[in-house]
Amino acid sequence: MKLVRYGEKGAEKPGLIDKSGQLRDLSAHVKDLTGEAYSPESLTKLAALDPASLPAVSGKPRFGAPVTGISKFVAIGLNYSDHAKETGAAIPTEPIIFMKANTSLSGPNDAVEKPRGSTKLDWEVEIAAIIGTRAKYVSEADALNYVAGYCVCNDVSERNFQTERLGQWTKGKSHDTFGPLGPWLATKDEIKDVQNLSMWLDVNGQRRQTGSTTTMIFSMAKCVSYVSQFMTLLPGDIITTGTPPGVGLGMKPPIFLNVGDVITLGIEGLGEQRQEVVAA
Amino acid sequence: MKLVRYGEKGAEKPGLIDKSGQLRDLSAHVKDLTGEAYSPESLTKLAALDPASLPAVSGKPRFGAPVTGISKFVAIGLNYSDHAKETGAAIPTEPIIFMKANTSLSGPNDAVEKPRGSTKLDWEVEIAAIIGTRAKYVSEADALNYVAGYCVCNDVSERNFQTERLGQWTKGKSHDTFGPLGPWLATKDEIKDVQNLSMWLDVNGQRRQTGSTTTMIFSMAKCVSYVSQFMTLLPGDIITTGTPPGVGLGMKPPIFLNVGDVITLGIEGLGEQRQEVVAA
Repeated sequence: MKLVRYGEKGAEKPGLIDKSGQLRDLSAHVKDLTGEAYSPESLTKLAALDPASLPAVSGKPRFGAPVTGISKFVAIGLNYSDHAKETGAAIPTEPIIFMKANTSLSGPNDAVEKPRGSTKLDWEVEIAAIIGTRAKYVSEADALNYVAGYCVCNDVSERNFQTERLGQWTKGKSHDTFGPLGPWLATKDEIKDVQNLSMWLDVNGQRRQTGSTTTMIFSMAKCVSYVSQFMTLLPGDIITTGTPPGVGLGMKPPIFLNVGDVITLGIEGLGEQRQEVVAA
Repeated sequence: MKLVRYGEKGAEKPGLIDKSGQLRDLSAHVKDLTGEAYSPESLTKLAALDPASLPAVSGKPRFGAPVTGISKFVAIGLNYSDHAKETGAAIPTEPIIFMKANTSLSGPNDAVEKPRGSTKLDWEVEIAAIIGTRAKYVSEADALNYVAGYCVCNDVSERNFQTERLGQWTKGKSHDTFGPLGPWLATKDEIKDVQNLSMWLDVNGQRRQTGSTTTMIFSMAKCVSYVSQFMTLLPGDIITTGTPPGVGLGMKPPIFLNVGDVITLGIEGLGEQRQEVVAA
């Protein structure tokens, strides 16, 4: 299934995109797509519905992030061998974990705010896992059983705040709108091989990132298992798993985003996003 | 007011501790102490109640953290001049921000888990501010108007995970039970001068930390204002503001916590906590 939240900010409804691409309303079957809605029991219930029986939604409504009410927005740093190389960092020997503020979560096509004082606003196309089942100390072999599905995530970053303002990366990863997620959550059955998906990102129509989940240093399963050694993951929690090469910081000379720039990005099977940069 | 959540884990009720120290039930007036309950409007309503009219609660129930349903658990690092010195770190020129997982939040007297593989489990008595009003880009002069009140927080830390496992501090700050908060939230009117409160922490009855909020490098107002430049604070959000000297890591030689150890800690006007260390 491709599950979405559609409608105005703060008033999103749950929906489903059927095989023909038609958006359909799920309101009669689930109140909202919180973590609970992504439990195995809930997904089984939703999968049993006949999409043709659900009301078709006309027009082109806005999409919100496909999950709400999360407890955590976790991110893995430097997780693509080719991206680690472009930043000049050593290949990590175990996953780097940081956190984005939950308030950074936004819709896939919502504007991205350039914070006051920002000089190095950057992009990162990433694949995110959404947790379906509470996970603490889960093994790598078992880890994907705790995942409900996958989404496109733009791990928007302010590099000056992230690394030149003393201390921890979270400072440059947490501004409102720094976490566009969606358009849809693809349940696991939609994705044949999560370690073989192509991904791309353009700025103003110019290709900046081209990559594939094949070059992830730590696999999706490893990332989920690893994070669960340090904190308990709850249904709905997001783990975004790093970006392939082509970020602005890695260019020679570096290129950063300005107000008016347009970012488009996508991952095979997970849809596309489009964000315009606006002043905070 | 001294506001609490009391009762078994997951089934806490809202309460108030009156001037005589009697716990009273607030269930008839507020459903739970979420961020919304800490808005200025809600606090005004609660303050207008006659405590004597509220049902007295008998016995000694467990306390939960005095806030629930939070969006963020933010922490400031190295914020006491004397603590920065003991760790060998330079005095920060601006606040260091990191995040604790929301799932680390626990009751003030709940057991603290020693994670699997933990070798350097440490303590940190801290004063935390709880946000009452949405705050984005607020000035230092105005910052405390966005705060509902204050609590004791033990910023429990695993130093090996925090600094020797590659990357960001959040790894050593986020395990379940690493955020005992409470016993109560003291509304601002209870605290005459938030920058002049004594604080202490014992391990197995031996004094380890003695300090005062007078030696904070960045004041409470500065911390709230500063964090609001990087992320939007929502009602209920927690900002814990750093620890005075005397952490295990700073001892010569360092001393860390083991299963069976008992931590007691307190801050003037904000009550006391007691945690036993157990295996995860």
